Amino acid sequence: MSTKKKIGILGASGYTGAELVRLLLRHPKVDLVLLTADRRAGQAMGDVFPQFAPYELPTLVSIDSVDWTTIGLDLVFCALPHATTQKVLQEVLAKAPETKVVDLSADFRLEDAAAYAKWYGHEHHALELQKEAVYGLVEIYRRDIKKARLIANPGCYTSCAILPLVPLLKARAIETDEIVIDAKSGMTGAGRSAKEEMLFSEVSEGFNAYGVGHHRHMAELDQEFSKAAGKEVVVSFTPHLLPQNRGIFSTIYVRGRRGKTAQDLHEVLVKQYEKEPFVHILPFGKTPHSRHVRGSNMTFIGVAADRIPGRAIIVSTLDNLTKGASGQAVQNMNLVLGFAETLGIDQPAMFP
Amino acid sequence: MSTKKKIGILGASGYTGAELVRLLLRHPKVDLVLLTADRRAGQAMGDVFPQFAPYELPTLVSIDSVDWTTIGLDLVFCALPHATTQKVLQEVLAKAPETKVVDLSADFRLEDAAAYAKWYGHEHHALELQKEAVYGLVEIYRRDIKKARLIANPGCYTSCAILPLVPLLKARAIETDEIVIDAKSGMTGAGRSAKEEMLFSEVSEGFNAYGVGHHRHMAELDQEFSKAAGKEVVVSFTPHLLPQNRGIFSTIYVRGRRGKTAQDLHEVLVKQYEKEPFVHILPFGKTPHSRHVRGSNMTFIGVAADRIPGRAIIVSTLDNLTKGASGQAVQNMNLVLGFAETLGIDQPAMFP
Amino acid sequence: MSTKKKIGILGASGYTGAELVRLLLRHPKVDLVLLTADRRAGQAMGDVFPQFAPYELPTLVSIDSVDWTTIGLDLVFCALPHATTQKVLQEVLAKAPETKVVDLSADFRLEDAAAYAKWYGHEHHALELQKEAVYGLVEIYRRDIKKARLIANPGCYTSCAILPLVPLLKARAIETDEIVIDAKSGMTGAGRSAKEEMLFSEVSEGFNAYGVGHHRHMAELDQEFSKAAGKEVVVSFTPHLLPQNRGIFSTIYVRGRRGKTAQDLHEVLVKQYEKEPFVHILPFGKTPHSRHVRGSNMTFIGVAADRIPGRAIIVSTLDNLTKGASGQAVQNMNLVLGFAETLGIDQPAMFP
Amino acid sequence: MSTKKKIGILGASGYTGAELVRLLLRHPKVDLVLLTADRRAGQAMGDVFPQFAPYELPTLVSIDSVDWTTIGLDLVFCALPHATTQKVLQEVLAKAPETKVVDLSADFRLEDAAAYAKWYGHEHHALELQKEAVYGLVEIYRRDIKKARLIANPGCYTSCAILPLVPLLKARAIETDEIVIDAKSGMTGAGRSAKEEMLFSEVSEGFNAYGVGHHRHMAELDQEFSKAAGKEVVVSFTPHLLPQNRGIFSTIYVRGRRGKTAQDLHEVLVKQYEKEPFVHILPFGKTPHSRHVRGSNMTFIGVAADRIPGRAIIVSTLDNLTKGASGQAVQNMNLVLGFAETLGIDQPAMFP
Repeated sequence: MSTKKKIGILGASGYTGAELVRLLLRHPKVDLVLLTADRRAGQAMGDVFPQFAPYELPTLVSIDSVDWTTIGLDLVFCALPHATTQKVLQEVLAKAPETKVVDLSADFRLEDAAAYAKWYGHEHHALELQKEAVYGLVEIYRRDIKKARLIANPGCYTSCAILPLVPLLKARAIETDEIVIDAKSGMTGAGRSAKEEMLFSEVSEGFNAYGVGHHRHMAELDQEFSKAAGKEVVVSFTPHLLPQNRGIFSTIYVRGRRGKTAQDLHEVLVKQYEKEPFVHILPFGKTPHSRHVRGSNMTFIGVAADRIPGRAIIVSTLDNLTKGASGQAVQNMNLVLGFAETLGIDQPAMFP
Repeated sequence: MSTKKKIGILGASGYTGAELVRLLLRHPKVDLVLLTADRRAGQAMGDVFPQFAPYELPTLVSIDSVDWTTIGLDLVFCALPHATTQKVLQEVLAKAPETKVVDLSADFRLEDAAAYAKWYGHEHHALELQKEAVYGLVEIYRRDIKKARLIANPGCYTSCAILPLVPLLKARAIETDEIVIDAKSGMTGAGRSAKEEMLFSEVSEGFNAYGVGHHRHMAELDQEFSKAAGKEVVVSFTPHLLPQNRGIFSTIYVRGRRGKTAQDLHEVLVKQYEKEPFVHILPFGKTPHSRHVRGSNMTFIGVAADRIPGRAIIVSTLDNLTKGASGQAVQNMNLVLGFAETLGIDQPAMFP
Repeated sequence: MSTKKKIGILGASGYTGAELVRLLLRHPKVDLVLLTADRRAGQAMGDVFPQFAPYELPTLVSIDSVDWTTIGLDLVFCALPHATTQKVLQEVLAKAPETKVVDLSADFRLEDAAAYAKWYGHEHHALELQKEAVYGLVEIYRRDIKKARLIANPGCYTSCAILPLVPLLKARAIETDEIVIDAKSGMTGAGRSAKEEMLFSEVSEGFNAYGVGHHRHMAELDQEFSKAAGKEVVVSFTPHLLPQNRGIFSTIYVRGRRGKTAQDLHEVLVKQYEKEPFVHILPFGKTPHSRHVRGSNMTFIGVAADRIPGRAIIVSTLDNLTKGASGQAVQNMNLVLGFAETLGIDQPAMFP
Repeated sequence: MSTKKKIGILGASGYTGAELVRLLLRHPKVDLVLLTADRRAGQAMGDVFPQFAPYELPTLVSIDSVDWTTIGLDLVFCALPHATTQKVLQEVLAKAPETKVVDLSADFRLEDAAAYAKWYGHEHHALELQKEAVYGLVEIYRRDIKKARLIANPGCYTSCAILPLVPLLKARAIETDEIVIDAKSGMTGAGRSAKEEMLFSEVSEGFNAYGVGHHRHMAELDQEFSKAAGKEVVVSFTPHLLPQNRGIFSTIYVRGRRGKTAQDLHEVLVKQYEKEPFVHILPFGKTPHSRHVRGSNMTFIGVAADRIPGRAIIVSTLDNLTKGASGQAVQNMNLVLGFAETLGIDQPAMFP
C-alpha cells in the first residue's frame, strides 16, 4: 500500500493544470488520484495534453461526479476560474474538512470583501472561508502557510513584484509614492481559452500593453504593499504581453528614502533572501533574463543604479507557470504536507 | 536619359541598408547608383540579401574605390558605424560638396562635442561638419531639414520617445523630473553582426533589459528634451530586447503639471499631429501594438490615465527599421530633394 | 471625377482581406469602395485591423445590405468561406453581370463537380458559374484569365507546388508516380478564427503535420498535375504548420524521366520562367528561404541534385498571403482590368 | 563520504553541455566534478549559463589543466567539436583507461574509416579506439552499450530517423530504394557559435533547407540502415531549420514491401517499442507534435496511410538536446554505470 499523499487537481485542462501534472508526476511523495475538467470529462489527460500520453494518470472527470466524502484527498489544487472557485471550495471543505486546499485562482487573495467586489464586479460568495485563507507567497508568509488549510496562491504578476518590493517597503528603504512597475508577461499567462487576440498570428512578432490603468492584479499589489509599508501604497502598474510562452519580467523604478542608494536596496534584498532556495539576487548592477528561469521555480532579481541620483531600477523575473503559479503551489503543498520545501520543484531552468 | 536623382548607400549590407533598398527600389524619383559594403565588396546585393536577387542593383563596392568627384550623387545615405562615419563624410563632402547627406549613425546627432566625447569615448573628428548638421526628426525640425546639407537621422529609441514627449515639454504640460521611459526594441535594432547573445537560441522565448542606467541613446534624449523644456531634463530610460524582429515600443510614465490631466496631454498631442502623415494619435485611453506599424513609416501613440491622480501613461510605437531609421531617412531625403514628403514611404503596415 | 476602377472586397475582416487592403491602398488605378464583414458590420476597418486606422476606407457593411444593381463595381474580390461563396457570387453575378470576380475561396477551383462533392462533402451549388471559371494562376493560364469574368484564385499550397511541377510535367521530364511534396505553411494560412490549436502558446516553439493523407488541397493538385501530364497523377502531399506568420515552403522529391538529371530539370524551369516578373529560379544547387519572399508577390524556386542518382530535390517558396492569395488576386485583377501585370504588387520582400 | 559516481563534462559551455548539467544536477547518483571549456576557463558555469548561478558547480577549466591520472572520473561526457575529440579521448583513455566515455561528437559513430574520411575531409586519428566504440542508441544496441567503455552517442537527426526505420528495415517491411526523409530541426541543433545566419533576425519568421543532397548525418543513416536491411540502403534526406529552439521532426515517406500496409508498419513499431520507456507510438493515423517532447527524453512516432495505395507516412519527433543528444547520453551513462535506465531523465515534457 502506497503511503504517498493523495492529491487532486480541479481544472486540469488549463496550462496551470498541466504544469502541476508536469511537476507532480515526478514528485516522490504524492499520487495524483483526481483530475477534473468539465468540458473534457471522460477524456484521457493525454488527449488534452499529448505530452502526458506515455504516463499513467487518472481519466478526467467532471467536478460534479466527485464524492468528496469518500475520495479521501490529502490536498486539492484548484485551478478553476474565479467565482466558480468559491462555490466549489465551499462544497469541498464542507464535505471533506480535513482536506488542504491550494487555490490558484484570485478568489481568496483579497482580505477585504469590498476590494474583491470592486475589482471582480460581484459579491464574494464565501466570506467565511476567506477569513481563514492565507496568502500563499512562501517567502513572505511561510510560517502562516504551514498551519493553513486554505492557501490563496498569489498571481504571477504579483509575486514578481512583491518579492523585490515587500522587503524594501518593510525596511522603509524606498519612497512609496513614486513606484512604477512596468510588467511584461509571456502568453501562457493569458490562459488557454480560444480568443482571436491570442492567436499565434495576432501575437507573434509584436508587443502591446493591456489593461492600462486598471488591471485586476493591482488589488493584490495594493494589499500587500500597504501591509508591508504600514500605510496605503498605490503604485503605477502596466502589464504587457510578450511574444513568448513563459516568463514574467518586471522593471521597477523606485526612489531611495532618506538617502538610501541603489546599493543599499541591493543589500536589503541580499540579506533578505540569502537562505531562500527560490530567490536569487544577482550581483549589484546586473539584471536577469526571463529565459534563465524558464520552467524552474526560481525568481531572479537584479538591482542597478539609475543615472538620476537617488533612484534605482529593480528587475525581477520568474516563470509565470512555475514560480508564478504551479511551482509556487507545489511549494505551498510541500509546506502544508510537511515535506522538504524544495521537493519536486528543484529542477534547474531549461535554457535554451 | 533618366531625370531621376542619383542616390548612394554607404554600408548597404546591414539591416538599415537593406531597408533603404526595399523602400528606394520602388521610389519613383530616384535611382540607386552606388551601394558600398567593404567586407562584401564585389558581391551582388542579392548575395547579401537574397530578397533582392530578382532586381537590378549596382554591385557592392568598397568605399575606397569610389571617386566622389565624378560619381555625381545627388544624395548619399550613410549607414556606417559611428566614428568611421565622421571620417568618411568629411571626405565625401570635401570632394563633392553639393551632395546631400542623410547619416543614419549617431555621429552628428549631438550638438555638444563634450557630450559626444563622454558617451562615445573619443573626441569628435569632424566638428566643423557637426555645426551644420540638422537633427533629422521631420515632425520637429521640418523647416531646418529642408535647407540642410547634412542631416543626422535620429536613433530609433529616441524618435519613439521624442515624438510624444517633445510637444508635451514644449507646452509645459508635464513635470520634468519624474519621467520614466521603459523602452523595448525588436532584435533588428541590434544590427547584423554575429554575436553570441544575438543568436536565435539565446533570444527566442525570452526577454531582458540591457544598458541599464547608461545607454548611449540617453544623450540624444537629454539634448532634445532639454531644448524642448527650456531647462535641463534627465529622464529614467531603460532599454529591453524583445524576441521579435521589428518594433520599438515605449511605455512612458509622466505626471501632469499644474493640474494637467491625461486627457489634457492627449489633446496636446492630437493638436500637434493632426496634419502629420506619419504620426497617428489613438483615441484617448487606447494604446497601440507594435505589430500594427510593422514595415510602415507610422508612429502610433496612445495616452491613458494612470489610476494615480495626476499621472498618465503614454505608449508610443514605431518600426525601428522604418520610421526609426530608413523610412525616416527617406522622409528626410524627400524634403531635401524637394519631393512630396510621403513619396515611396506611404505603404501601410504589414500585419499579420 | 475619379477614373479609377471601383473595387469591393467581400470578407474583409480576415487575413486575406487585410492583405488585399494593404496592397490596394497604394494601387494607383483602383478605389476601394466596398468592404463587407458580416460579424463586424458597422465597424471601421481600423477597428478590425488597427494598422489601417490612419487611412480613409469605407466602413464595413454586411453583404445583405449591398445593392448589387446600383453599386457599380468593376471588380469584386471574394474572401468568404467555401460554400457561402457559391451562393453569394451567384447573386452578385445575376444582378451585376458586368462585374469581374476574383474568388479567393476554393469554391470554383475544381472543374469536376464530383471531385468537389467528394472533397467538400456537399454538392456544388453553382455549377453554371463553375463552367466559366478560370483557374487563376497567371503564370500557367495568363491568356484565359485576361478574358475571364470569374477567376478562381488558387490555394497557397497549390500555387507553391504547381509553379515548379507543372512545367516539368508538361515537358515529361519527371516520373509521375514518385512525387513527394513535403509542404510547410505559416500560421496565417490557417486563418483568423479563434481555435485552441491556433493559440500562440499552442503553436510557438513547435512544429507538426496535419491532415496527413487527406488534405483538401490535394484535389487541386490532382487536377492541375493530371492536366499537365496528360494522365492521372496522384502525389504524396503532407502539410505542416510552421511557428511563423507567413510563408509556404515545399520540399519536392522527384525522379527524372528517361535520364533527365536535376540540372535538366533546372534548365526547364529557367527557360519557362525567365521573363516572368514573379517567379525567380535560383542558380542550380541553391535553395531559397521563405523569409526572402515575405510580403512580396515572388515565388523563389531552387533545384538541387539528390545524392541518389536520377533524383532531384526541388524547393519552392512564396508568401501564402501574397503570391499564395491576395497578391495573386491583385495580379489577376491587373490582367482582367487591363493594367500592367505588376502594378501595385512589385514591392520587394520585407526581410528582416 | 559520497558514494556517488564522479562525472566530468568536456566542452560544458555549449548547448549540449548545458543540457547535461541541467539533467545531471538532479540525478541522484552522480556528482559533477569536472567541467571544461577552453575559451571560458576560469569562469563560473553561471557566467556562461546564468540559469546555473544558484547552484554549486565546479569552475570551468581548460582541458589541458586536467590531470587524468589522478582525477579519478568514473565517466566523462565529451561534447567537443569533431577531430579535436579524437585526440582528447586518446589521451584521456591512455591515462585513465578505467574511465567510461560517452562521446557526443560524430567522431566515433562511423565504423568505416573510409566513410569517415569521405564525409569529414580528413583521416581518422584514433582508429584503435574506433574499433571498440559502440553506437549509443540504447533502443537498438542496449546489450552492447552495457559492456562498452567508449560510446558514440548518435546524432539528433539520425536518432529521429533510425528509431522508426530500423525496425521496419529489419522486418523487411518496407522497400529500401524509395525512402524519403524530410527532416526539420530547431536552432539549438546548430550550436552556440556566433554566425550571421544564426542570428535571431536571420532565423525568426522564416524557414529554409540546408545541406541539400550532402549533409554529414547521411553517413550515419547509411551505416545503420544498411546494417538493419542487410544490404546497402541509400535514402533521400533533406534537413531544414525551424524558427524554434528545440525539436527534431522527421516526415518519412515509405512504400510497404510485399503488400505490407501502413497499418502493418504501425504494428511492427508498436510491438518493437511497447516496453521502451522513451519511445511512444501514437495510435494509428495520429502524428505527433515536436512541442510535446520538449525537454523530455521521449521520442514520439506516428504512422498514417498515404492516399497512394501501398505507401505510408511516418512522423517521428524528439528533442534534439535531450533524446537527440544529452538525454540520450545520460541514458547511456545509466546503462554503463549500472543505474536504472530512466534515472534522472524521466521528467515529462515541458508544454507549453
